[in-house]
Amino acid sequence: MLQVWALDGIPEIAAGTDLVDTIAARVGDTLADGDILVVTSKIVSKAEGRFLTAADREEAITAETVRLVARRTAPGGHVTRIVENRLGIVSAAAGVDASNTPEGTVLLLPVDPDASARALARGLRDRLGVEVGVVISDTLGRAWREGQTDHAIGAAGIHVFEDLRGQTDAEGRPLVVTMPAVADEIAGAADLVKGKATRRPVAIVRGRGDLVGSLDLPGARSIVRPAERDMFRQGADEAYADGFAAGVASAQT
Amino acid sequence: MLQVWALDGIPEIAAGTDLVDTIAARVGDTLADGDILVVTSKIVSKAEGRFLTAADREEAITAETVRLVARRTAPGGHVTRIVENRLGIVSAAAGVDASNTPEGTVLLLPVDPDASARALARGLRDRLGVEVGVVISDTLGRAWREGQTDHAIGAAGIHVFEDLRGQTDAEGRPLVVTMPAVADEIAGAADLVKGKATRRPVAIVRGRGDLVGSLDLPGARSIVRPAERDMFRQGADEAYADGFAAGVASAQT
Repeated sequence: MLQVWALDGIPEIAAGTDLVDTIAARVGDTLADGDILVVTSKIVSKAEGRFLTAADREEAITAETVRLVARRTAPGGHVTRIVENRLGIVSAAAGVDASNTPEGTVLLLPVDPDASARALARGLRDRLGVEVGVVISDTLGRAWREGQTDHAIGAAGIHVFEDLRGQTDAEGRPLVVTMPAVADEIAGAADLVKGKATRRPVAIVRGRGDLVGSLDLPGARSIVRPAERDMFRQGADEAYADGFAAGVASAQT
Repeated sequence: MLQVWALDGIPEIAAGTDLVDTIAARVGDTLADGDILVVTSKIVSKAEGRFLTAADREEAITAETVRLVARRTAPGGHVTRIVENRLGIVSAAAGVDASNTPEGTVLLLPVDPDASARALARGLRDRLGVEVGVVISDTLGRAWREGQTDHAIGAAGIHVFEDLRGQTDAEGRPLVVTMPAVADEIAGAADLVKGKATRRPVAIVRGRGDLVGSLDLPGARSIVRPAERDMFRQGADEAYADGFAAGVASAQT
């Protein structure tokens, strides 16, 4: 049985808020070994003071962008940029967020979400004496599918993949290519209880204690597929345009 | 509180097995209004007799393919095709599955997973007198991220999106672009209890009864983004090659 619930009563988080204090005060003695806390990246960013003035939104996106992956101008003129940010994550607007932030400001992603997750997991383990894992989640769009789901952008103290590559299926054949990204599934499960429009940014997932382990396990960065191994490292229109230009140049020489 | 658990004791499913009978026999009287059943597409395919002989695997992939999206040859010579299948779903190998099937056979996806989900939801509602939703799940890879997560490829009696587009955030600003694909998150949550290597192909998700509704709600097909609106409708290498050829042709005329 998997149980997932959101913590009520998490107060507004400001720059400098100690999230270990805040969460420890709300969980009381309900946390148990093997629980996984899923924390919305937004409150981690707020605690880390990752605010910028809103006038800088497009600049902030540019600053957070390592590589433009795709770009589309909607009929109304609104430009959507899909970019790879400095964390390697491909998303719209580099994770620069203007919702649920004080008027006139935007929020950047945490500097290093895996490090943030590790600090939180270590702090909660020390404070409460329970071996918990931490996932830091963000809402991401997907290729090929409408809507968004929550994904793990930071993780500590958990196996982000359930590695079945040595195992066999029920017929005894090897499950060669199956590697469930359980940290993403956990982030998505937590989204089902957190809600977007309310202030319930922390959820607890209980029932997969087998995934919880050392704080030195690889973080969510290991879920990111490096661009050079990604068949979708560039939007179709952008790749076509690059190819077209190269084709013209090649024919002219 | 969200609760997710897998049904034990689901027997091997053969062509013609009545899944309503099979599931009803296992849930007893534990199902309640608002529960969502997540059924692995594999057992739906088996019940529908979607077997082909394994010699036909590459042919089966080709037959299920509407459009080649990307193709990669690994150093070892193994070819991975990412294709759009007749359901609009972009995935590796068009969902043609050779694991956990009788030796010498492969399994195709259900003919119409939304219709399969509707039949199952209607049958269980009629049989057990409870208003349940049904999601049919499949394991899919993603662009930009390693590993796989379970997604909804069929759905009935549930809202596949939690539509927040009329709502405002905690600061009163509209949540304009947020449309959580909750059916995918539900499929992923169910995967956390089902396991890949074991025979637990049915899970129950309890606690989001607000998503359960009419059997006429749009199915999982509505999650599929039409190719013409998809910035990643083609792999980067394929788009580049098409562009290059067009560029050469353009320069030569």
